[in-house]
Amino acid sequence: MPHISLPEGYPGIRSLFMYSPVTAQPMNDLVQVLLHDVSTSTLTPGERELIATYTSSLNTCKYCASTHGAIARHQLGGNGQVVEEVIADPSTAAISDKMKALLVIAGKVQQDGKKVTSDDIGAARAAGASDKEIHDAVLIAAAFCMYNRYVDGLATWAPDDPEVYDKIGRQRAAEGYMTKPFKVS
Amino acid sequence: MPHISLPEGYPGIRSLFMYSPVTAQPMNDLVQVLLHDVSTSTLTPGERELIATYTSSLNTCKYCASTHGAIARHQLGGNGQVVEEVIADPSTAAISDKMKALLVIAGKVQQDGKKVTSDDIGAARAAGASDKEIHDAVLIAAAFCMYNRYVDGLATWAPDDPEVYDKIGRQRAAEGYMTKPFKVS
Repeated sequence: MPHISLPEGYPGIRSLFMYSPVTAQPMNDLVQVLLHDVSTSTLTPGERELIATYTSSLNTCKYCASTHGAIARHQLGGNGQVVEEVIADPSTAAISDKMKALLVIAGKVQQDGKKVTSDDIGAARAAGASDKEIHDAVLIAAAFCMYNRYVDGLATWAPDDPEVYDKIGRQRAAEGYMTKPFKVS
Repeated sequence: MPHISLPEGYPGIRSLFMYSPVTAQPMNDLVQVLLHDVSTSTLTPGERELIATYTSSLNTCKYCASTHGAIARHQLGGNGQVVEEVIADPSTAAISDKMKALLVIAGKVQQDGKKVTSDDIGAARAAGASDKEIHDAVLIAAAFCMYNRYVDGLATWAPDDPEVYDKIGRQRAAEGYMTKPFKVS
């Protein structure tokens, strides 16, 4: 049960966005630019969703990891296998060397930004990452340290039914983050 | 030295906001609503800046802890003593029981949202905190887990000179977060 009284029938961060529209607006604006808009990053939406999923998984945030895992799958043309591989171990997943290096950085940011070393940055550059892509990976990981804590810190509802996440994943992959959330019960 | 090439003369998150205006906009919108606007919270701007300062201090983010410590001091009429007390130990600081209970929650959110217990929420309610104030404390702590990681994950410049932070503190306390950052060198 959530720690505060939230609108019923909306899971995870959706219930918080209904509760507090004034903070929902910039939080949705941010995730739209970070993950969905194709003009704002040279990483694909699928790659950016993988960084969000991996960070949420490290933070053991069930709602966010399940939701962004589903969005990543839909953004990657239905490739759920690679999403599972990234969650299990990015170093052996079927992703580019650039993505592996960016996920190492994201994993350090999840612990503490100061853990990112010049060697980590050098490895990402050697694998072809630009400054902007390193920036985006750091900010996505940092941002999900916020979203995950918001969702878990208020003990929001995380459905068990995978169908719920698949439906959210399909909607967000197609429409982005600026459309109205739907009820799931 | 920052991990990526950033505009010179702007410290901390200011250099990142110059580098990436498209993400700066929602990040500034969020912090303006969370910390500065008086219509969006029944916690005072000074109280909210204390939560931001305490979280940044727990994350050992020098730039954010120094900046928001200075903003808190200016928002609290120049009371730097209470800012130092909160950083050292909220339980013995000269703040309300409600603020002490909210800072316990913020401290747990800084570690992991799932660490917040029903007892923590009950203690905050018993000390007079509303659902909205509990929400705001959780989201401020969560948001600074993002800002801190963004600032540290890209190894931005954190000046040593306390005068720099005092100047930023005075500006932000008076003008909020929507005005243009100034250069400090």
